[in-house]
Amino acid sequence: MNFSIVRYIMGWILEFESAFLLLPTLVGILYGETNPALAFIASALITFLTGHLLRRKQPKRRDLYAREGFATVALGWLALSIFGALPFLITGEIPNVIDALFETTSGFTTTGASILTDVETLSHASLFWRSFTHWIGGMGVFVFIMAILPLMGGSTMNLMRAESPGPSVGKLLPRVQDTAKILYALYIALTVVGTVVLLLCGLNLFESLTTIFGTVGTGGFGIYNSSVAGFSPIAQNMITLFMILSGINYTAYFLILQKQFKEAAANEEVRLYLLIILGSAAIVTWDIHKMYPTISESLRHAFFQVGSIITTTGFSTVDFDTWPQLSKTILIILMFIGACSGSTGGGIKVSRILILLKSIRVELSMMIHPRMVKKMKMDGHPLSGETIRSTNAYIAIYFIILFASVLLVGIDEFDFTTNFTAVAATLNNIGPGLEMVGPTQNFSFFSPFSKCILIFDMLAGRLELFPMLIILVPSCWKKY
Amino acid sequence: MNFSIVRYIMGWILEFESAFLLLPTLVGILYGETNPALAFIASALITFLTGHLLRRKQPKRRDLYAREGFATVALGWLALSIFGALPFLITGEIPNVIDALFETTSGFTTTGASILTDVETLSHASLFWRSFTHWIGGMGVFVFIMAILPLMGGSTMNLMRAESPGPSVGKLLPRVQDTAKILYALYIALTVVGTVVLLLCGLNLFESLTTIFGTVGTGGFGIYNSSVAGFSPIAQNMITLFMILSGINYTAYFLILQKQFKEAAANEEVRLYLLIILGSAAIVTWDIHKMYPTISESLRHAFFQVGSIITTTGFSTVDFDTWPQLSKTILIILMFIGACSGSTGGGIKVSRILILLKSIRVELSMMIHPRMVKKMKMDGHPLSGETIRSTNAYIAIYFIILFASVLLVGIDEFDFTTNFTAVAATLNNIGPGLEMVGPTQNFSFFSPFSKCILIFDMLAGRLELFPMLIILVPSCWKKY
Repeated sequence: MNFSIVRYIMGWILEFESAFLLLPTLVGILYGETNPALAFIASALITFLTGHLLRRKQPKRRDLYAREGFATVALGWLALSIFGALPFLITGEIPNVIDALFETTSGFTTTGASILTDVETLSHASLFWRSFTHWIGGMGVFVFIMAILPLMGGSTMNLMRAESPGPSVGKLLPRVQDTAKILYALYIALTVVGTVVLLLCGLNLFESLTTIFGTVGTGGFGIYNSSVAGFSPIAQNMITLFMILSGINYTAYFLILQKQFKEAAANEEVRLYLLIILGSAAIVTWDIHKMYPTISESLRHAFFQVGSIITTTGFSTVDFDTWPQLSKTILIILMFIGACSGSTGGGIKVSRILILLKSIRVELSMMIHPRMVKKMKMDGHPLSGETIRSTNAYIAIYFIILFASVLLVGIDEFDFTTNFTAVAATLNNIGPGLEMVGPTQNFSFFSPFSKCILIFDMLAGRLELFPMLIILVPSCWKKY
Repeated sequence: MNFSIVRYIMGWILEFESAFLLLPTLVGILYGETNPALAFIASALITFLTGHLLRRKQPKRRDLYAREGFATVALGWLALSIFGALPFLITGEIPNVIDALFETTSGFTTTGASILTDVETLSHASLFWRSFTHWIGGMGVFVFIMAILPLMGGSTMNLMRAESPGPSVGKLLPRVQDTAKILYALYIALTVVGTVVLLLCGLNLFESLTTIFGTVGTGGFGIYNSSVAGFSPIAQNMITLFMILSGINYTAYFLILQKQFKEAAANEEVRLYLLIILGSAAIVTWDIHKMYPTISESLRHAFFQVGSIITTTGFSTVDFDTWPQLSKTILIILMFIGACSGSTGGGIKVSRILILLKSIRVELSMMIHPRMVKKMKMDGHPLSGETIRSTNAYIAIYFIILFASVLLVGIDEFDFTTNFTAVAATLNNIGPGLEMVGPTQNFSFFSPFSKCILIFDMLAGRLELFPMLIILVPSCWKKY
């Protein structure tokens, strides 16, 4: 382990975070919230000084292998969450340390699970920060740094690989920095267009910005206790649209930019993703149509909730915990499927489901025709053995973490559906689950121990499991 | 597909089943139950005639490739269940066709899930048949036929592979027939010793036989509504012992017979299996110790329920649905782990869990040391790529069937815990689940559609998924 490079990059991370903390300070000043503004200034200062201290000494060696990539990203995200929790503690809006860490981790990992029983009592500065952490975490802070700093040459690919979702990180352009730039450009474009659309739908600037941060980051923190249920139907439909757009593999947008429309439309993952949304929303609409006065209202709620859960956003327009069991089961399954790889969404990812389905097909046809040799392909290209192997390891780790977490959270003695959906909602970075963690509820009642398990799950889910596990392997930390 | 060989072997299966049906007939006669005895005679006749009709014409070709193996086993088990349901229908003890099929499939697949609200009203003949189906299904009817008929030379390995549990079927002896003989000899020995032990514990012969059928076959049908709760503590402890013994890989017993004690003791799967039982029982004992007057009683119930669930038997001494959530969660996780491969137990199997854990370790250390080449080993032998690949495909199919079934059963609109544990209990061939399918409940309230899904799950679980899927692939049925 090259410790000094890990330290050095973590210093950068914190310095950037201190800059991010100035934005809610500004919001606090604009809204005349003196104490919150001061708390954010203080947090920014503490974060900056810590970062500066870490970054002061240049690293002796600049080599950044896979293990340094994983360790930096895992520790970087942990640091991000810890320092991001400072304002909540200093303002006293979330006085408990574990709770503040839970809320901030939930923000950065774009989970959107909250321990707050009444978000409307928060200051505008804190509400803005909560939503802004979604935006920072959505595309990833390392990708951001890579986009604007020519940090350390070619080996930064290992950072990007550790932070970006999906079984294989496609380089859109030969240089990592250019890829990062394109991704952030697309991300910002989506944010700006979304904000304008919501403004046109009648939301004010504060509502539009915070909502769109949670939408394009697929986070789900709302600024009202009723999530987005209070917005107009047209605004809700627009949020549905932008959630679904945010769950699409950004490679498709890049191809459209390059005018390769055919290739973009042929993307197998995006096609399956849209198909699942259409199919699920159709069944849910049919299943809930008796609960709402008109079909158009059922359609709106069905598409909203399906889009919100599959993209792992977690906004809600209704309390879907009161829906019939079939619809709830569909939502639980969508929790696991998740969005496309290379998007800001979480979950197992549609591409991994595709790889699994393809490998099942190959396995079955090899059982029927033992002498046949079949190659697995995706979008016309053969899938490498490494991708298949690591997808399988991912699924295995995924279910082991899932069951281990349900077991440990079970010590609190709440019911199985609550525990199971609480873990599913955090590990998949969604937010709300069912029963006691349903959309009108929150996570405050869990014990500190369970909250720590769920914090781990949120980070593991956002960073695609491996970084959080690798830092637990002792041989990762051996000096060389 | 060589249709004639499939037809021919299915004929054999039914003829054997007709012979098996004579045993409950005898029980009926002994207990003076005229009508049931006549119903069993009639069922035996119908089954024999159908079998004889199928077997009359010798197959033109004797080739039995993998696909014929899978198809024969899948269709054979379906036929076994259908004809095995006849006595229940003819006696009128289970008048509904789907219910009778559910009960019989549950018997042969050693699931032990029942649609009966009051088993004590059944005739002795039917109670015996219910338990006897566990015994037939436990080691497998194809293995039985192979043990006593020199059916069709070497290619019968494909039948054995399709019916026997575990990621790789070890040939104990070079000839398939000898392996099948050894397996059944061990199985019968365990049955006889178990029956004698239970007789010594004070059970009568009928109780001992039916209980031991359910124990060594890891089935779980009881002859009392309270399962085995009415038996003495010592009898319950003996059942625990025999359940755990029945969940051990029979290869270990074979090694002991061959005086290879060191090899038997070094079996990684068996060691992990016993370790999981000890660990789980310890936690459960601690978790439930306030519910029972003495520690020894808590220990007894904990070991019984842990043994019953991990071996996928499904007997119960208490209503564990009233246990604290931590213990219930442990039981749910044990449902999925299951027993050892090469035993009569179901579930994912401990060896598959071991392979997954090993592949995660290899994956993580390859991420930390990308240039290192690691080979996966089990019991000192390298694991073949084929075994690893098919284990991964198994896990993928497993979870897809699991979630699809939970979704389809969800149409009935019962709660999630009920649906989830009902599917887990049938797919893993356990029997009872939690909530509405808890140990004091039954499966009668499900719709016929849900029952069909659960019947499919029971067969898929017992036959390790692939056979039931392969017969759904059209290209499997192409003539050549």
